[in-house]
Amino acid sequence: MQNRIVIVGGNAAGVSAASAARKRDRKANITLITEESYPPYSRCGLPYVIAGDISRFEDLLIFPHSYFQMMKFNLLTQTTVKHINPNEKHIIIENTDGKTVTISYDKLILATGAKPFVPPIKGIKKREVYTLRTIEDGRLISRQVVAGKHAVIIGAGFVGLELAHALSIRGVKTLIVEMVPQILPTLLDQDMAMKARGRIEEKGVMIITGKAVDEINGREKVKEVIVGEESYDADLVIVATGVRSRTELAIQAGLTIGSTKGISVNQKMETTIPDIYAAGDCVESKNIITDQPTLCQLGTIALRQGKVAGINAAGGQAIFKGVLCSAVLKAFDLEIGATGLTSNNAEKNGIKTVSGRVRGKTRAEYFPGTSEINVKIISDTSSSRVIGSQIIGSEGVAQRINMLALGIQKQVKLEELVQIDACYSPPVADSLEVVMLSAEMALQKQLRKSN
Amino acid sequence: MQNRIVIVGGNAAGVSAASAARKRDRKANITLITEESYPPYSRCGLPYVIAGDISRFEDLLIFPHSYFQMMKFNLLTQTTVKHINPNEKHIIIENTDGKTVTISYDKLILATGAKPFVPPIKGIKKREVYTLRTIEDGRLISRQVVAGKHAVIIGAGFVGLELAHALSIRGVKTLIVEMVPQILPTLLDQDMAMKARGRIEEKGVMIITGKAVDEINGREKVKEVIVGEESYDADLVIVATGVRSRTELAIQAGLTIGSTKGISVNQKMETTIPDIYAAGDCVESKNIITDQPTLCQLGTIALRQGKVAGINAAGGQAIFKGVLCSAVLKAFDLEIGATGLTSNNAEKNGIKTVSGRVRGKTRAEYFPGTSEINVKIISDTSSSRVIGSQIIGSEGVAQRINMLALGIQKQVKLEELVQIDACYSPPVADSLEVVMLSAEMALQKQLRKSN
Repeated sequence: MQNRIVIVGGNAAGVSAASAARKRDRKANITLITEESYPPYSRCGLPYVIAGDISRFEDLLIFPHSYFQMMKFNLLTQTTVKHINPNEKHIIIENTDGKTVTISYDKLILATGAKPFVPPIKGIKKREVYTLRTIEDGRLISRQVVAGKHAVIIGAGFVGLELAHALSIRGVKTLIVEMVPQILPTLLDQDMAMKARGRIEEKGVMIITGKAVDEINGREKVKEVIVGEESYDADLVIVATGVRSRTELAIQAGLTIGSTKGISVNQKMETTIPDIYAAGDCVESKNIITDQPTLCQLGTIALRQGKVAGINAAGGQAIFKGVLCSAVLKAFDLEIGATGLTSNNAEKNGIKTVSGRVRGKTRAEYFPGTSEINVKIISDTSSSRVIGSQIIGSEGVAQRINMLALGIQKQVKLEELVQIDACYSPPVADSLEVVMLSAEMALQKQLRKSN
Repeated sequence: MQNRIVIVGGNAAGVSAASAARKRDRKANITLITEESYPPYSRCGLPYVIAGDISRFEDLLIFPHSYFQMMKFNLLTQTTVKHINPNEKHIIIENTDGKTVTISYDKLILATGAKPFVPPIKGIKKREVYTLRTIEDGRLISRQVVAGKHAVIIGAGFVGLELAHALSIRGVKTLIVEMVPQILPTLLDQDMAMKARGRIEEKGVMIITGKAVDEINGREKVKEVIVGEESYDADLVIVATGVRSRTELAIQAGLTIGSTKGISVNQKMETTIPDIYAAGDCVESKNIITDQPTLCQLGTIALRQGKVAGINAAGGQAIFKGVLCSAVLKAFDLEIGATGLTSNNAEKNGIKTVSGRVRGKTRAEYFPGTSEINVKIISDTSSSRVIGSQIIGSEGVAQRINMLALGIQKQVKLEELVQIDACYSPPVADSLEVVMLSAEMALQKQLRKSN
């Protein structure tokens, strides 16, 4: 019998699940349902279209239409799932012309993603207040981008900083307001955030931390924002205060929702109701180090979770072991990345830490193009195991984060990290690798502590 | 009592040993002896000065003179060690004016390095036949570099390819002749060598493999080289056929020399005679995977071995665990790197292998500047452990090699490598990391084999 796999959500997790299911089962009937009018595209690329690095939003479409034909997916765009009936094993969908259709499934995969969180600020419903999640959002913002205008970005997370980069290089005067006392609070410790902040401010972006936007003023159109006692000109406001898992359907279907408000899943990406899987931004993940539930709403995680859900839904055996939330962003000439726990986060989890922080070079000191790179390595004092890293530099950040992610997954200790048989050549690396120097410094501090 | 540490050789291993010894023992009397007229410099940078990437040979000097004063080293340049007397624990040196002096030591560290191997080719003693090992060599070659001239490089190893890059971009018509049937025979397998070769030939460098230079012709000056039946114009010839450990002093002192013709040392970098250590290009290392002796004449290894020798000579406890010979080079727009064993090398050591080879992207498909990167992952079929990798691309090669080196040192298996919690952002990484894709392919091949 043909296995009917229905996937709700057509972005990273959904398409990854569909593709993995197809590789496992050539005959399965695979339906992919998305509310959006576009087939899957790279959300992470949206700021770079606004920046002008990429010329058209359509360039973000990941697969040509032929891919969906080749993979024999039933792709339903502009289609909303209204209801899940787990007992009858069917869902009810509605398309643009308002028609509802019932679709039966053998396996259902929820990849419903997340939606921007919009804080209850006075005036937030005004025109020219945007979020950035979809191509439509991107188009709306793009139309407002005119050199000399003033933009206020609420939130100094990934999207906030990437947008600040995009707007600034297009000549928009940009202010970021972050309620927490530092930028990138989920990614970096205060010390590293300070370094990143300094380098972003140098580019002409104004940053206010530790204060909230109290009000967005203007008649119909936005005119200014109020932060404490001060008012700041604003022709447009972008809310970039994170996303929330989309779990309405999951709740309606009776699935268990975790403490982080993501859908609960096990290592097979199975929810608490048989034959329903979930993957991507809508699910709660488990941190590999602390074993605690966490939200890790990243495209990479969505791809890997989707793959596991797809393989299992198609009758295979796959396991998703958990997350380190490795992430990297590029804004201006700066790459900022992290993996594992911050010192701050570790201490909150009751882990005593020691850290080493070193400023090194990306190429030989004397080689043209060499640039500064700052690396922080965090280890668990009791075991000497590396549990986190944060890196800021102009090049070579992403691959160092990947190296440390692999190291953490392999439970590497500081003593081992200082002994990497690293490679070197003047145009591409320095003879003393900065990751090893940082580990060395952490090790010295740890030895001093234990003496 | 003041510990008298005498170090023979003033480059990577020697200075690393001296610095490590000083950090361990502030009062030690540390003497650093070098034949060269320059204090330590980066040999690896020599081709890039010839290329014009770096403006002056002096830019390669690693430490300002003040460093040697600050560290209180007795730096003796242009000084030759004539004799070692291990029983009396002294050495006899000769400086430029021919005077000999006896210097007593408590600990002696040999960091005598290596010298170019020059094969016995007819005509090899002619003028305009060079090797590249020292700043003096670099100056001699540089003077011959005139656009339109013809150069023949014998040997397609690291130095050969880096020099081909240097000469070509300065307009010299360059031919490489390599006796082995592939380029970079110690670094790459044939399949990856083919890929690299194609991209180098595209840049206008002519490459002949599997044939030797039979003769270098010309009256006094070089005019042509003969390869088989063919003759090729040559205004200069550079011999880049590898280096040999400099062990004359070690042999005179009665130290044991290993099967690879490097000085035998244990994990403490101790030679077979008490109180004499050795480090760097002159010693034989042990491969971490095969446990077999190997020569791994790289600056990175010299630095780490020198450090261990220096700490131990100064009364500390340090261990050097062995090598993977991780290495990277950049020639033209190509980075080529490797770590661990090649498939070829593994099979010679009796290890059955499976490999995955994938062509991926360094950034998101749609992001400007994205480029091709080829990754090969080699694993031991019996254990699924990763034992080697080779990578060719325009960016991001060095740090991926380091990641794999760490992985190999932590005995990572293919099943684990496909699960790296890797990071992603369109400008700096692709959403599916090519190292993981290559591991996935190797894993699939292995599963098929075992079925």
